[in-house]
Amino acid sequence: MSDTELCRRSSCPIACALDILGDKWTLLVLRDMVFSRKRHFNELLDNSEGIASNILAERLKRLTAAGIVTRSTDQGNKRRRIYTLTDTGLDLIPVLVDLVLWGGTHQETGAPEPILRRIREDRDGYIAEIRANHRPQRSA
Amino acid sequence: MSDTELCRRSSCPIACALDILGDKWTLLVLRDMVFSRKRHFNELLDNSEGIASNILAERLKRLTAAGIVTRSTDQGNKRRRIYTLTDTGLDLIPVLVDLVLWGGTHQETGAPEPILRRIREDRDGYIAEIRANHRPQRSA
Repeated sequence: MSDTELCRRSSCPIACALDILGDKWTLLVLRDMVFSRKRHFNELLDNSEGIASNILAERLKRLTAAGIVTRSTDQGNKRRRIYTLTDTGLDLIPVLVDLVLWGGTHQETGAPEPILRRIREDRDGYIAEIRANHRPQRSA
Repeated sequence: MSDTELCRRSSCPIACALDILGDKWTLLVLRDMVFSRKRHFNELLDNSEGIASNILAERLKRLTAAGIVTRSTDQGNKRRRIYTLTDTGLDLIPVLVDLVLWGGTHQETGAPEPILRRIREDRDGYIAEIRANHRPQRSA
């Protein structure tokens, strides 16, 4: 899948982003990679929303084609694949954090109040902290 | 449509947000309301991505049910309806701005470089400015 195929409706950056991310599941897969540091297919399959394995496989393929995720072999178990966020993927952390804040503020959710307060008071610091947590994983 | 129906997959704030916003069109409708200040159905129908009128009608209904948009009668033409962003809707400006920045940085788009630079250098000021532009419209 080329970038051109992924990015086709218009030249608007929001439309191009939604051509890749605009569905109910893609950002949830990224949520689990970003916040729970999940890396294996079976870890990602085990989420609260019950993602189907064919949907997960399709989304990982699409995210890999878009350069948001890379796929490699687990050195500890060569039959397993590891999915890792690229810098392009890590640049989606602000979008996820803003959705946490919006959902936690305006919907009835289980978002912990200390997290929402932290985002309101120190969004940039919170994003930098999450991003820094991915460094050891990526260089492992 | 009740909030409970809109927000059902899990108690995660991101999942609840995506239950409403997670598709290829909803955030584009909001984009046109936020950045182009479109208010009428026919204005919203006229976008670069060619949204279909049944999809637009369904999304406006969903956004109204979710408290993101209100629907009222145009005092200048009582046969027309006006769609206006609520405070809950305006709180989605940060998500849209982050998508502009991510799409404009990582995809080949027509995002103007001065806008991307402004977001990188003064995101909060840019968001406040867009939000302030909606005040006269809302009190009109």
